Amino acid sequence: VRIGGGSMAMIAGPCAVESAEVLDTIAGAVKDAGANILRGGAFKPRTSPYSFQGLGEEGLKILREAGNKHNLPVVTEIMDPRQVEIVERYCDMFQVGARNMQNFDLLKEVGQANKPVLLKRGMSATVKDMLMSAEYILAEGNHQVVLCERGVRSFEDSTRNMLDMSAVPNVKGQSHLPIIVDPSHATGRPDLIPAMARAAVAAGADGVHIEVHSCPEKALSDGPQALLPKQYAALMGDLRRLAEVMGKRM
Amino acid sequence: VRIGGGSMAMIAGPCAVESAEVLDTIAGAVKDAGANILRGGAFKPRTSPYSFQGLGEEGLKILREAGNKHNLPVVTEIMDPRQVEIVERYCDMFQVGARNMQNFDLLKEVGQANKPVLLKRGMSATVKDMLMSAEYILAEGNHQVVLCERGVRSFEDSTRNMLDMSAVPNVKGQSHLPIIVDPSHATGRPDLIPAMARAAVAAGADGVHIEVHSCPEKALSDGPQALLPKQYAALMGDLRRLAEVMGKRM
Amino acid sequence: VRIGGGSMAMIAGPCAVESAEVLDTIAGAVKDAGANILRGGAFKPRTSPYSFQGLGEEGLKILREAGNKHNLPVVTEIMDPRQVEIVERYCDMFQVGARNMQNFDLLKEVGQANKPVLLKRGMSATVKDMLMSAEYILAEGNHQVVLCERGVRSFEDSTRNMLDMSAVPNVKGQSHLPIIVDPSHATGRPDLIPAMARAAVAAGADGVHIEVHSCPEKALSDGPQALLPKQYAALMGDLRRLAEVMGKRM
Amino acid sequence: VRIGGGSMAMIAGPCAVESAEVLDTIAGAVKDAGANILRGGAFKPRTSPYSFQGLGEEGLKILREAGNKHNLPVVTEIMDPRQVEIVERYCDMFQVGARNMQNFDLLKEVGQANKPVLLKRGMSATVKDMLMSAEYILAEGNHQVVLCERGVRSFEDSTRNMLDMSAVPNVKGQSHLPIIVDPSHATGRPDLIPAMARAAVAAGADGVHIEVHSCPEKALSDGPQALLPKQYAALMGDLRRLAEVMGKRM
Repeated sequence: VRIGGGSMAMIAGPCAVESAEVLDTIAGAVKDAGANILRGGAFKPRTSPYSFQGLGEEGLKILREAGNKHNLPVVTEIMDPRQVEIVERYCDMFQVGARNMQNFDLLKEVGQANKPVLLKRGMSATVKDMLMSAEYILAEGNHQVVLCERGVRSFEDSTRNMLDMSAVPNVKGQSHLPIIVDPSHATGRPDLIPAMARAAVAAGADGVHIEVHSCPEKALSDGPQALLPKQYAALMGDLRRLAEVMGKRM
Repeated sequence: VRIGGGSMAMIAGPCAVESAEVLDTIAGAVKDAGANILRGGAFKPRTSPYSFQGLGEEGLKILREAGNKHNLPVVTEIMDPRQVEIVERYCDMFQVGARNMQNFDLLKEVGQANKPVLLKRGMSATVKDMLMSAEYILAEGNHQVVLCERGVRSFEDSTRNMLDMSAVPNVKGQSHLPIIVDPSHATGRPDLIPAMARAAVAAGADGVHIEVHSCPEKALSDGPQALLPKQYAALMGDLRRLAEVMGKRM
Repeated sequence: VRIGGGSMAMIAGPCAVESAEVLDTIAGAVKDAGANILRGGAFKPRTSPYSFQGLGEEGLKILREAGNKHNLPVVTEIMDPRQVEIVERYCDMFQVGARNMQNFDLLKEVGQANKPVLLKRGMSATVKDMLMSAEYILAEGNHQVVLCERGVRSFEDSTRNMLDMSAVPNVKGQSHLPIIVDPSHATGRPDLIPAMARAAVAAGADGVHIEVHSCPEKALSDGPQALLPKQYAALMGDLRRLAEVMGKRM
Repeated sequence: VRIGGGSMAMIAGPCAVESAEVLDTIAGAVKDAGANILRGGAFKPRTSPYSFQGLGEEGLKILREAGNKHNLPVVTEIMDPRQVEIVERYCDMFQVGARNMQNFDLLKEVGQANKPVLLKRGMSATVKDMLMSAEYILAEGNHQVVLCERGVRSFEDSTRNMLDMSAVPNVKGQSHLPIIVDPSHATGRPDLIPAMARAAVAAGADGVHIEVHSCPEKALSDGPQALLPKQYAALMGDLRRLAEVMGKRM
């Protein structure tokens, strides 16, 4: 999968890996809809220590198997520099989440690994801060960095975060790095995700990252913000038409 | 000009009306590019009392003449409830700016007028606050209200404001009112305006509001954020293709 | 009443003037506790047009009478430049609220009046913006301007606004104007108001503005954030001790 | 040193440990002024990888020696869970910085250590988020947690961050944990630090954390925001008087 240069990363999957069965269903559905990377969390950064923390290595195995079965590379979040080895063993791409965008030791560690890194913007990071964090990875020799706009904290209380769509052209004007958009975490609302995914493509993003769950009401994490597989498939049709207007391949 | 229901408001013009000659040039250019409403400020809300405050009634006359000559309805900002009569005499649409979104006496006054109102979102107004402000106008009997997302204040210091693109589907989910997007004030950067205008159309906005100036470096107000006429024309080509994908008329 | 130069404005009263009886009770209580200016709203800027909008001129009369009876100068909010004459007739000080900090025509109008102006910081105004708004009043010849920090919008959702206490020394470093603090609107929480009022005095503020209501649960506006008279009296004891340490008179 | 329950933590020292000589000078000065904990960074979280990153273990040794010589316990920032052992060897208190407030693996690791933790609020963390992060440490068995308000990101561009002073009573209303205030990082301006330190004491904070440098213009990190030793000493006199009014011991 190439990302950037006209090729788009269509990343989809559940917030957390919950079981082989559920992930298999979701992976099959997003693959059919046109996704080219499967996501799923095994180590979950939760605000409260009493929330579900992810399945750990068991989750990584399930993710790897689903990726293999459906022929999709897999990406998962890494939270601790000591997890690089195990995550690298099972996955094709590291995700550094918003809460760890300035966890500099983690950045240095994935900077020494040989797999691409999806670096999400911190909740109150400026675009320049995000580029500086990318620099921590690049400076260690890993040049495969993909940035991700996922919304920032604001006073608006009807959405989970505020999606700063202008980060897309803003980054493109000062860096060669590809940038994708995550409307799921940015809005936290399935009714707003499709419009924001379309806007991302029209703004020139190199991909979109969307949470999909076959049964959102039973999801162990962030269920309410997930799209259903059929909603995702419908959205992908729209995105394909917009990508064409933008001269991009999906 | 209809706004909403598949018809788009393409509002363009200079920040401030400066002279008949300059406005005539700009009006002709934006008309040719496909704009269907001409904007220009005669009463300018400036942070400092020592900045250019607009030409007042003289500016309204110039705006009216340019509108007549180029067959474009005109919109201008109103700042004081005592200006309703004079603005109504010359213009086709009132604009209530961000700084006055909660100037409730002004809202009531334009609510009693017979011309449509373009209500811009306040710099730290929630979407709900904006809808409540629209309600002040509607409750007085004026049902022709168009909302405008123009960015909110944030910590990001590389753009003038942060464009909250999700306001578009957010409003559409809870109100029948049309909503347009102003990427000029939202970003303050000509290099970001085209991408944000495209994103607005893809997000489902009912129009875009863009500042255009034939000689930005000589503009008396907000020149640095204006597009050149030829940049605007090129952008309009992109927007037309995206509007088509979205099933809209421009 | 002098404000600044070591003299403090202790402004107190209900959010809105509701009736002569209620206001009389409150005015007597705050006077006894040491307040030197009585506040009460007759024209209320409410987010929704369907909320209580204030008693208008009737409210001004009640406020004036309470002020006379208890020998307290009175301050009330003005929202419309056409209200200057009537407000000036009944009150000793104009308040320009946060929503109107950049209502420039209102600022000019009170700039031509002969009574002092309490100018509250806008909900997303920088300190510099606030000083520029004061400049609109000063430039018209009215030099009696008192600034008021009342919190700004932020992502923190457990308080109504975020009190920017650093605005106090920040203003003092670049202007001769006095600045007071309003912990009532800033926090919206009676449990936080005393600590913030104390902090304001220690930060060097020239006064505090506190909402007091004898029966908060029956208040027509912002009741839940009001202090009870006895809470206010207890707080005033603390403030007096802190003012002494700071070398101020209360 | 007890923190909370009427006893205050007066933490002072340079941003980064730079050399034994410089630290010795500063430590002596802050001890004389009444500080009871010495701070200094050996591992520095810098936005850019090309900025000074701290002296590492060498810095820890220098810090320990200065603490021993001047009879001050020492606190330093930890950024990586793999640093717990080495930091614990040299220091008396861990500091988890704003950028790592939601670095949950780091929180768990210091939660298993036997030394107190100074947990700083994240740049866009709510008070509730901060308490939940503290819970990660407490849940591992380490009950010695001190919270620190150090400002959050906002639109105000004349200060480094916005100090949310209301966090002090806000935390005290829902947790037994002590909370101190860091006006140095919150404002980034020496001219505002004294007023904010005074306000913190009056708001009920259990201490203040202030950066002091004997030669700010030569500091390798954050020099411009440091107080000079004599400014710190003068401030401590004010704080002592205010603490007395508040019934606290310094």
